[in-house]
Amino acid sequence: MKAAKVTIVEVAAKAGVSVATASRVLGNYGYAGAKTKERVEAVASELGYRPNKLARGLITGQTRTIGVIAGDISSPFYAAVLRGISDGVEARGMSMLITNSDETVAREIAATKLLRENQVDGLIVSPCDVMDSPHLKEAAAAGIPMVLIDRKVTGLQIDSVSVENIESSRDGVARLLWAGHRRIGVVAELGRTASQDLPKFLASAGQGGRTNLNAVSTSWQRLGGYLAAHRDAQLEIDPALIVHVGEHSASAAQQSVRALLETPDRPTALFCADGLMSSGAMAAIVACGLSVPDDLSLVCFDDLDWMAFVGSGIDAIAQPRRRLGKAATALLIARIKGAKGRARNLKLRPRYLSRGSIAPPPGTSTA
Amino acid sequence: MKAAKVTIVEVAAKAGVSVATASRVLGNYGYAGAKTKERVEAVASELGYRPNKLARGLITGQTRTIGVIAGDISSPFYAAVLRGISDGVEARGMSMLITNSDETVAREIAATKLLRENQVDGLIVSPCDVMDSPHLKEAAAAGIPMVLIDRKVTGLQIDSVSVENIESSRDGVARLLWAGHRRIGVVAELGRTASQDLPKFLASAGQGGRTNLNAVSTSWQRLGGYLAAHRDAQLEIDPALIVHVGEHSASAAQQSVRALLETPDRPTALFCADGLMSSGAMAAIVACGLSVPDDLSLVCFDDLDWMAFVGSGIDAIAQPRRRLGKAATALLIARIKGAKGRARNLKLRPRYLSRGSIAPPPGTSTA
Repeated sequence: MKAAKVTIVEVAAKAGVSVATASRVLGNYGYAGAKTKERVEAVASELGYRPNKLARGLITGQTRTIGVIAGDISSPFYAAVLRGISDGVEARGMSMLITNSDETVAREIAATKLLRENQVDGLIVSPCDVMDSPHLKEAAAAGIPMVLIDRKVTGLQIDSVSVENIESSRDGVARLLWAGHRRIGVVAELGRTASQDLPKFLASAGQGGRTNLNAVSTSWQRLGGYLAAHRDAQLEIDPALIVHVGEHSASAAQQSVRALLETPDRPTALFCADGLMSSGAMAAIVACGLSVPDDLSLVCFDDLDWMAFVGSGIDAIAQPRRRLGKAATALLIARIKGAKGRARNLKLRPRYLSRGSIAPPPGTSTA
Repeated sequence: MKAAKVTIVEVAAKAGVSVATASRVLGNYGYAGAKTKERVEAVASELGYRPNKLARGLITGQTRTIGVIAGDISSPFYAAVLRGISDGVEARGMSMLITNSDETVAREIAATKLLRENQVDGLIVSPCDVMDSPHLKEAAAAGIPMVLIDRKVTGLQIDSVSVENIESSRDGVARLLWAGHRRIGVVAELGRTASQDLPKFLASAGQGGRTNLNAVSTSWQRLGGYLAAHRDAQLEIDPALIVHVGEHSASAAQQSVRALLETPDRPTALFCADGLMSSGAMAAIVACGLSVPDDLSLVCFDDLDWMAFVGSGIDAIAQPRRRLGKAATALLIARIKGAKGRARNLKLRPRYLSRGSIAPPPGTSTA
């Protein structure tokens, strides 16, 4: 094996030219004499130097590569969104580099830095911090083409593609209400400070929903839809039915849902705000020996493979995940190519998949 | 908004110095006079130039970034492996860039090129083409530290971390045989040329398994385990029970399994060779109105979330996915730091999760 990467500095030294000259020859830009060109190329070939994107990026300012910062690549949601982005990128003969923020701001900042250092032509980001994100604002101010997916950031006026969370959740919960349910639980990952944040959110939502729901994270928006459906039906909210899970994991959700289902006055229906919450809830339902929909009706946000074959099928609010990725890519590439004009904020509408997980509450006469 | 990325060429021009000098100042290497230094830095700051990894990579040959080429990031297997890699990378204060080959050689070649151009310090690759892969051989010959995951490549003597596929599949299928099953179906994604490849594979496996199973893809290895279990029990193989799925998708698996389950002489048990095959098979089982394990026993390679809560639980051969990612990262970083010596090929052992999806064949007296 030869030693690791040969740098242009070594090529220049061995060829007896400046780094600038070696760069011009190997980057095919600017002037270099024929003999110099020949010598530099011979040395580069001898040392096994590979012209690289870094060098080209330095010179042309374009790498034909986009960077993606996903929230959590291990969730089925991002897996499908990334496939949509990949389709769009491939179709244009471009490349993409993916990073994962794991929904932590520190990692997202590091990923933004890394991708900018790698001179990507633009960024697709699902921001962790919808309330601030100075690193994204700085990148936008520096002119980096950027599209937000899944969420927006308060005060950052750039293109975004997200899903209609509030209305579709309101509709899903309304279906449970129409079936006669009055005690509907909701499971959502609301962050570590949910206990403090919830009372304020409930209070403002109770006053006609003056909280700016567009600024809060998707889980809060879906909770907002749950509250709105209750408000429409002029029903009070029982805070005991709101299961706020502190971390985005199925096992955390399972534990919390199990605790709710083991209370004497357990709900007759459940609304799960995302895929991991749904997997955890389903595991808890089975662990408690409950049957869907006979003992408990169920509506889940995001459609996972098992929802087609568990029990008689689970109703899902199916997000257009792949289309979301494709749309974000199209917006980004237009900006990279120089499209001007106001920020575009696309909102895609999910599809309700009715499979049979809603029944009247147990003990209800259906006659 | 300012214009896009400012290049070092522009900084050098405006400061009236050579690109080499500007590089030395902004890259903090080599000599530059105090006044020159001051002028270059002032111009860089004025133009909003960001020192970048590309430039640093050119100079130091190190970027503290590793590149990962995953086979299919939308599969739960890679999602968990990537998490393991991410844990290892984070712990060392390094970064990672992820690409997806989508199990196509052309995309893997493009990803290899892209990551090398981005000057990653090393690569973790799950190779699509286990029989050849000249692009990976070339990268290894060029001295790029590299670790293969999940599979190895014939003739490429580098570090690898994979899972014990053959023995664990043999064990899983043996459990079905012990329970009395004699017609066990197997579902595996064996590529588009499976119809031609299968007879040869079966013939050579029948002659004591002289096919070099270590060289073939994981699905073929798992099929090899299925054949070995039958050989151990001195049972003939019925080729009609081998469902070879042409593409790696749950819906393709669902269609093929459904066709098998609708035959008059359907199997009494099923072995699924990976997660997507399992999801497709489960959907087909439910669509056919069959119950696990009463009508059909089931063993699945790879443990998915729903296997814990479907029916009475599905038996799974659980791969140590996260550990696989961590181990690959440790090997790679050791090589980046200069570890010499022979290639290490780690084989991790999966764990069998017995949940209750194996019962005696229907109609068998259990008295």
